Amino acid sequence: MKMLKTGLVATLLLSSAPVFANDSVLKATDDPKQWAIQTGDYANTRYSELNQITRENVGKLQVAWTFSTGVLRGHEGSPLVVDGIMYVHTPFPNNVYALDLANDGKILWRYEPQQNPDVIGVMCCDTVNRGVAYADGMIFLHQADTTVVALDAKSGEVKWTVQNGDPAKGETNTATVLPVKDKLLVGISGGEFGVRGHVTAYDMKTGEQVWRAYSTGPDAEMLVDPEKTMVLGKPVGADSSIKSWEGDQWQIGGGTTWGWYSYDPDLNLVYYGTGNPSTWNPSQRPGDNKWSMTIMARDADTGMAKWMYQKTPHDEWDYDGVNENILVDQEIDGQMRKLLVNLDRNGFGYTLDRETGELLVAKKYDPAVNWATEVVMDKESDQYGRPQVVAQYSTAQNGEDTNTTGVCPAALGSKDQQPASFSPKTGLVYVPTNHVCMDYEPYRVSYSAGQPYVGATLSMYPAPNSHGGMGNFIAWDATKGEIKWSLPEQFSVWSGALATAGDVVFYGTLEGYLKAIDAETGELLYRFKTPSGVIGNVMTYEFNGKQYVGVLSGVGGWAGIGLAAGLTNPNEGLGAVGGYAALSDYTQLGGQLTVFALPD
Amino acid sequence: MKMLKTGLVATLLLSSAPVFANDSVLKATDDPKQWAIQTGDYANTRYSELNQITRENVGKLQVAWTFSTGVLRGHEGSPLVVDGIMYVHTPFPNNVYALDLANDGKILWRYEPQQNPDVIGVMCCDTVNRGVAYADGMIFLHQADTTVVALDAKSGEVKWTVQNGDPAKGETNTATVLPVKDKLLVGISGGEFGVRGHVTAYDMKTGEQVWRAYSTGPDAEMLVDPEKTMVLGKPVGADSSIKSWEGDQWQIGGGTTWGWYSYDPDLNLVYYGTGNPSTWNPSQRPGDNKWSMTIMARDADTGMAKWMYQKTPHDEWDYDGVNENILVDQEIDGQMRKLLVNLDRNGFGYTLDRETGELLVAKKYDPAVNWATEVVMDKESDQYGRPQVVAQYSTAQNGEDTNTTGVCPAALGSKDQQPASFSPKTGLVYVPTNHVCMDYEPYRVSYSAGQPYVGATLSMYPAPNSHGGMGNFIAWDATKGEIKWSLPEQFSVWSGALATAGDVVFYGTLEGYLKAIDAETGELLYRFKTPSGVIGNVMTYEFNGKQYVGVLSGVGGWAGIGLAAGLTNPNEGLGAVGGYAALSDYTQLGGQLTVFALPD
Ligand SMILES: O=C(O)c1cc(C(=O)O)c2c(n1)C(=O)C(=O)c1cc(C(=O)O)[nH]c1-2
Ligand SMILES: O=C(O)c1cc(C(=O)O)c2c(n1)C(=O)C(=O)c1cc(C(=O)O)[nH]c1-2
Repeated sequence: MKMLKTGLVATLLLSSAPVFANDSVLKATDDPKQWAIQTGDYANTRYSELNQITRENVGKLQVAWTFSTGVLRGHEGSPLVVDGIMYVHTPFPNNVYALDLANDGKILWRYEPQQNPDVIGVMCCDTVNRGVAYADGMIFLHQADTTVVALDAKSGEVKWTVQNGDPAKGETNTATVLPVKDKLLVGISGGEFGVRGHVTAYDMKTGEQVWRAYSTGPDAEMLVDPEKTMVLGKPVGADSSIKSWEGDQWQIGGGTTWGWYSYDPDLNLVYYGTGNPSTWNPSQRPGDNKWSMTIMARDADTGMAKWMYQKTPHDEWDYDGVNENILVDQEIDGQMRKLLVNLDRNGFGYTLDRETGELLVAKKYDPAVNWATEVVMDKESDQYGRPQVVAQYSTAQNGEDTNTTGVCPAALGSKDQQPASFSPKTGLVYVPTNHVCMDYEPYRVSYSAGQPYVGATLSMYPAPNSHGGMGNFIAWDATKGEIKWSLPEQFSVWSGALATAGDVVFYGTLEGYLKAIDAETGELLYRFKTPSGVIGNVMTYEFNGKQYVGVLSGVGGWAGIGLAAGLTNPNEGLGAVGGYAALSDYTQLGGQLTVFALPD
Repeated sequence: MKMLKTGLVATLLLSSAPVFANDSVLKATDDPKQWAIQTGDYANTRYSELNQITRENVGKLQVAWTFSTGVLRGHEGSPLVVDGIMYVHTPFPNNVYALDLANDGKILWRYEPQQNPDVIGVMCCDTVNRGVAYADGMIFLHQADTTVVALDAKSGEVKWTVQNGDPAKGETNTATVLPVKDKLLVGISGGEFGVRGHVTAYDMKTGEQVWRAYSTGPDAEMLVDPEKTMVLGKPVGADSSIKSWEGDQWQIGGGTTWGWYSYDPDLNLVYYGTGNPSTWNPSQRPGDNKWSMTIMARDADTGMAKWMYQKTPHDEWDYDGVNENILVDQEIDGQMRKLLVNLDRNGFGYTLDRETGELLVAKKYDPAVNWATEVVMDKESDQYGRPQVVAQYSTAQNGEDTNTTGVCPAALGSKDQQPASFSPKTGLVYVPTNHVCMDYEPYRVSYSAGQPYVGATLSMYPAPNSHGGMGNFIAWDATKGEIKWSLPEQFSVWSGALATAGDVVFYGTLEGYLKAIDAETGELLYRFKTPSGVIGNVMTYEFNGKQYVGVLSGVGGWAGIGLAAGLTNPNEGLGAVGGYAALSDYTQLGGQLTVFALPD
């Protein structure tokens, strides 16, 4: 496996021919000197072919330059580098800076939107933003208030804007957008406010809406074909969502779409996950609550669902299923397969055939996971594809107003939004993980538009009987569902990983370290304490013949919400404040880019 | 001169014997491994004996570690390092962090005062703070709201607090405090609000007030002895201040005391400067406006003035006279003298005998200075010690509501609060300067407590017919009053300089560069772009055998007020916004410590 190079890179090269691929994105992401998409490539591998920085020399890494974003709180995502310009974004108010790499980072233009600060109050998990996107000479920003903005990449001029949701109803945004062909795919946040999730395609040139696919509701609104949309090898059938909810609950049923999207140009399929069903009190919403918690494969042109797979039917723990789907071509049982790898919040690492949605692997990627024993793999079983819930940890079975204790993982999952990286050289997925458990007490709540619709009290703590820390950084063999190695971390690793052809894997920590490890062995090769906790994703680019590695610091996100929002009551921040209280001994709020390089 | 070592270091060593020197400060500042006082030493030389980093190897400097302060806006002053702990302060709200150098900067304790944010509205020139002080196992903070706080240096526990002024009257603070013997000397800001300046000594153990010396008013309140207090060799005589004002104007007459203080343990004299007279409209306050704009030499025990020298009688340009007094022992005319070097805002570099107040040198340190032709040095002249004002640039002679144009320097002076450094090895003073001119239009204003009492509209621009930039970094021979060399800078150098025994001089720039230059030649040896504009002062320390250089980034201060306070109208920020508008092309708000070292 190790030496087997994924077919993906070759695939991308080939498919840059058609007019609508999107050519400009394929061209830019195919050039390892640029970092033209948040996810590194359409496949979400976050792998770079750059190999100037190697496991042999990475120990000599130095800080090359830095940039303060002028904004505090959680900095997720990463800068982009396209055509010698670096695009840096900030959390709310979502400023964008274009920095001239040829001129020591001089600010070429800036976009500083005037957003109503009320939106901060309806953002569940800090005022983060996961970055801008590039295509066709434009930079696309999806603001917290759900305004989608197209900016001229050279001048910063606003080309068009469109409103994707309504913050007054709790609809917000934290995600990046995905430019595919002539469209921009855009998600929505608000699962904690009863928002009904959807993905929307806007015309890239004009901002006009082309299609919208809801996560719940009637087939037509979900862009689901009862005959043609497949679930684990079978047609989904009519009214699959509506039947899985009581009454009209699907209308306030969550399934938001705030994660990372991927795209396979050959299959012309877009992949993303839908979030938790609303409320967090499962007793209030009997049924499987489809299609929350689902991996979706949709046709990029029409939005029609080709296949779906619900990972956590009837969620009882907020195991919000939006985590990224990494598209890799690897051998399984001696056969080359087009795979989709998903390290879900629920603690299971799934490997599926991305063409058909066939489930190939479902294994725990943290041994602490205890809410389910397994995912049934027997195709003949009526439980096929379903996790087998352990009664003791079932907040639904224990019922409302009962504190279910010791559930692992905690609501923020064995992994949250922090994206993993895949190296075709090692065949491994490098996963920033949480090692956190929780007590969870659901209570009855009533829906009111724009008000929290949570219905559970949580507290979080490090996984017991383990190394005492709240995270691990692991290497995952997705073909077997095996942890290759695991590096204990004091806090959850809330930053995205980067693997490079130099056999180095980078990630950041909540204390603020950028770490570089050996892609084979996990050996720590370099670490540097950046100004603030890192929840951004590591990226790399080359400029004037030199490889750089960049990362945003700025503690926050759900894990860092105590620091970010100045909360101190342990149960605040949906239970995260207590668990991560010790973080304030290591870092303070920030908002900085640090760029590293080897000495001249 | 070059090889002549100042007698000061030896002096300090000797004088650490007496119980009350203050011993702990002398001991700590005498150890070059520590940075125990904002000014480097009592003499304000900001010179370090550390010589691991030299002009030969400084080019290899690297960023060793970083820390985000969690606060934006202008970061002045520097961290202290005492007994293995680094103390980092922030602008308003004036947080203090104690970082464990032995444990990768882990936060040992933090002090986060709850101040009424209304004080921000009465701070003239950004919400800066110039840092904490150390003595006797305590850390002293003077908050924006004028609360003086004594903290246990190991635990952060509050030992005592005392209120030094009233923000409702426009009394605020930005300065550090000076621990001398068993007292803490504390100044006040508010010259733009008609605050009557004073220096107050508090008992270091209890916070009780011991003495207070006003800058204006009756002799008794100024702690001036008409017979014994000397001015240019003569007793000052009775009621010197009151006679120089019309009516009661001295009560709202400014002369605030927000600069850097120095102390000569042998002479037991404390030196500081008093600020501009209020208002900025000179026509409203005829007379010399004593003792605004004055270098004060006071007995550290009693506060009694030993001598005074008014640099700018009847100020017409806001040439606020608080700049630091550097105490050096150098030869003048073949004679070793105890000198005091003052690079005043008005553009003249003064050298005085610090024992007697005799004026030895007064020369322009920027050739652009045009408001006065010279300072009269003839002791027989009735103009002795007075600058000779050029009528064209006299805003008083031109009168109210007349725009006096082309005055150099601008109100922020040829140098503002940004402190210079003196190297005993080269005998030179390294001065961060402004190269800015202005138009100044005074207008009538009436006093109302807590309201701006400014009375002038300003606009600022780079000195014409020069290099186009707004600053220079110069080497100054204070014994001759000569510029040795001058390095042009695009913006004012608003950061404090550091000279070291490694023959390197460090300073920061408003764009965010830390620069290292050759102390002899001024040659640029190293530069690094820190996250935000630097208006902090460079410091150095040694830990575990390694020399470090640290500096706070965070653009702001008067020069950076446009960015810091989000102002865009060119005349806002007392005229600074327009002049420094281009700064936003280079840097954004920040608040970070960057620590540098040589590679292992
Ligand atoms: O249900 C939602 O709509 C929604 C939105 C978001 C978000 O937009 O950041 C998060 C979550 N849920 C969530 O469950 C979660 O754990 C989470 C973590 C973070 C983060 O950025 O650290 N965001 C979100
Ligand atoms: O008159 C005063 O009381 C007063 C106070 C301050 C201050 O406290 O920062 C400044 C000034 N004046 C002033 O004139 C000035 O140029 C100035 C610059 C700065 C700065 O920190 O950049 N503060 C001040």
